[in-house]
Amino acid sequence: MGKENGNCMNEILYRDARQIMAGAIRQVLPDIAVGQALSGREYSGKVYLAAIGKAAWQMAKAAADCLPVSPAAGIVLTKYGHVKHMLPGIVCLEGGHPVPDENSLKGTEAVLNMTADLTEDDTVLLLLSGGGSALFEQPLVPLEELQDITGQLLASGADIVEMNRIRKRLSGVKGGRFAQHCAPAKVEAVILSDIVGDPLDMIASGPVTPDTSTCRQAMAAARKYRLNLSSRAKACLEKETPKELGNVETRIIGSVRQLCAAAGDVCRELGYETVLLTDCLGCEAREAGRFLADIVRCHAGSGRKLAFLAGGETVVSLTGHGMGGRNQELALAAAPGIAGLHAAVFSVGSDGTDGPTDAAGGYVDGDTQRALQEKGYSVSEALAENDAYHALQAVNGLLITGPTGTNVNDVAVALLQGD
Amino acid sequence: MGKENGNCMNEILYRDARQIMAGAIRQVLPDIAVGQALSGREYSGKVYLAAIGKAAWQMAKAAADCLPVSPAAGIVLTKYGHVKHMLPGIVCLEGGHPVPDENSLKGTEAVLNMTADLTEDDTVLLLLSGGGSALFEQPLVPLEELQDITGQLLASGADIVEMNRIRKRLSGVKGGRFAQHCAPAKVEAVILSDIVGDPLDMIASGPVTPDTSTCRQAMAAARKYRLNLSSRAKACLEKETPKELGNVETRIIGSVRQLCAAAGDVCRELGYETVLLTDCLGCEAREAGRFLADIVRCHAGSGRKLAFLAGGETVVSLTGHGMGGRNQELALAAAPGIAGLHAAVFSVGSDGTDGPTDAAGGYVDGDTQRALQEKGYSVSEALAENDAYHALQAVNGLLITGPTGTNVNDVAVALLQGD
Repeated sequence: MGKENGNCMNEILYRDARQIMAGAIRQVLPDIAVGQALSGREYSGKVYLAAIGKAAWQMAKAAADCLPVSPAAGIVLTKYGHVKHMLPGIVCLEGGHPVPDENSLKGTEAVLNMTADLTEDDTVLLLLSGGGSALFEQPLVPLEELQDITGQLLASGADIVEMNRIRKRLSGVKGGRFAQHCAPAKVEAVILSDIVGDPLDMIASGPVTPDTSTCRQAMAAARKYRLNLSSRAKACLEKETPKELGNVETRIIGSVRQLCAAAGDVCRELGYETVLLTDCLGCEAREAGRFLADIVRCHAGSGRKLAFLAGGETVVSLTGHGMGGRNQELALAAAPGIAGLHAAVFSVGSDGTDGPTDAAGGYVDGDTQRALQEKGYSVSEALAENDAYHALQAVNGLLITGPTGTNVNDVAVALLQGD
Repeated sequence: MGKENGNCMNEILYRDARQIMAGAIRQVLPDIAVGQALSGREYSGKVYLAAIGKAAWQMAKAAADCLPVSPAAGIVLTKYGHVKHMLPGIVCLEGGHPVPDENSLKGTEAVLNMTADLTEDDTVLLLLSGGGSALFEQPLVPLEELQDITGQLLASGADIVEMNRIRKRLSGVKGGRFAQHCAPAKVEAVILSDIVGDPLDMIASGPVTPDTSTCRQAMAAARKYRLNLSSRAKACLEKETPKELGNVETRIIGSVRQLCAAAGDVCRELGYETVLLTDCLGCEAREAGRFLADIVRCHAGSGRKLAFLAGGETVVSLTGHGMGGRNQELALAAAPGIAGLHAAVFSVGSDGTDGPTDAAGGYVDGDTQRALQEKGYSVSEALAENDAYHALQAVNGLLITGPTGTNVNDVAVALLQGD
């Protein structure tokens, strides 16, 4: 995409951004990592494969290709649109995300049926990735209420840690309860981490991990965000989750730290001097974008070709009713600060999905602010409406990848051309 | 201050922070810089000295010490508490800041009287620093209305650029109008910049600088923040400011860039590997603090002794009714993110004043979060109330310097011990 064909982007920066994005995501795809994690494993009894999350299909495919035995049964439970094709001997199911729906519940029931009444010789191979919190769900309250509570949490600005403290206790499978269900069978969990810092009990709400959170914390979060809860839901918050599980073995095969490292590698290959700012970014998305813009602006004119990397998961406080996601908001908010510079800021979710949109993230460069103005868009108004999607769409600033098959958080990159 | 004497700080980090703060501010004090700017100057006619802003007293003293001729008359117009002692032959006046009051107006009138009816042989030596927008004021609307509009602007989240577009047009001295008043006398302006990027027409609202902003922009800002304006005020917004001034010569002698460089020098002397992130930080204060905390957290465990610097001027959106300032909010917001680490985040205003408080800024380290909890403070609640002052005060996290005599924005520093 260049100015020649009517677009509004700095050609070189846009090409670099696409290359960094693609290269970074490629290196955290589960295919090779799952193979490595399973190589040399032996199983005495039957193996039951349960792949859950946004990367479930990719992980299941990789496992099926390398397992020494055919699974006795297998289920993929992933987000709509994430099953690429059928896999032999494995049932592929799709469900709602980020809000669980009837199909999430049916899929979960299928996994629970498959793993019921196993013996201690059997193994449940659990391939877990982000998105599992919504997809793998047996609600202890009516689904409508669970959806309502999830909606309340998403709109409240609660972080994922707080959300999971509550959702675990409203669930028959989260917070270690699925491992309890599988016992006495062994559970071998292979995990692609989508939570900064890789806290095992948080990833997919930790279905096979002893829960470190307490009822007290869950109730505190409910009060903090003034959640509207039924008495049944309140009773669930007061019931403690398993604190010890003897039948589980867990391995992490991908995380945002690797995503950042991979993005940094591509930046260096492209000739950028690379600075890793953080791999645990957690602030408000738009302010992170402004900060990144201020960082590149300070170094403009230094003659250095620089890339600043920030991985993690920012948050968005909803104030409007537009379309967008945290990566799009981050990028859009950076546009005014880099206006006129040979610089770009982009941010992508490694899963290819940013918020409830078809974009993986957003891209802006020194030409974007003017292009937005010419098309009648104001950055501050678009952000106030949480409508980054349409503003970015108008200037070809959406980064679209489709589902990538992995899910290890987001990476934001600020690029400066050394001229 | 150490844990031994009942305090709640990491001794080494706190000592380093105080040393960085003091060293950075020392290097942007106007004393030497004013002397250098005026050395070798010759004046054919009379010299009238007008020093305006938070650094006015210090600048006037430095000028009086080095001018080749005694000023025919001189006035210092500064913020309450900023006059250290009388200066021979110079009238020292104090007024309201950040909201102008009767004394600001009287002081301005004195300056206007001193500089009325001059000849083209005369020179007005104008020593300008931040805070001049409030202190140097001849309102074209009643003072009560001006105070009300300033209050509306401060609470609206408008940035200083937008504020000045409006305030200039409500004033008989801002936006180049003071230079018009002095003509045909020459105006020699020596400026300590408190606005990121040093836009001359913005510093102290540019009393001697052709105004680059337009009536249209001023009216747009008024609409954007839904200001409540009288018809008289609206008429002022429609009257254009001078776009050309032949009698003015201007020099900048200090800016946030120098403040950051000076802070970096001290960090390096203390053994920190130093990374200048930006010298034009402009995002929401608390989110900048979170981002800085995420930056140090990512590098914890690397074994490196690191200092990350960010200079500029963050913004605070008022939602509560507590006490604080942008530097205090930035620091406080960083406390949860660095909890338990051998790290610190601090932020100070180089003028020694952060918001309407007696503190210059705030300091937190890896021990602060626990100390706050023990004293019953919650970071998120304190920030929601814009009450960083009292939370920091409870854990000895206020940085207090008193008026420093300079004013070149803020610097925030994130320190990591290499252990």
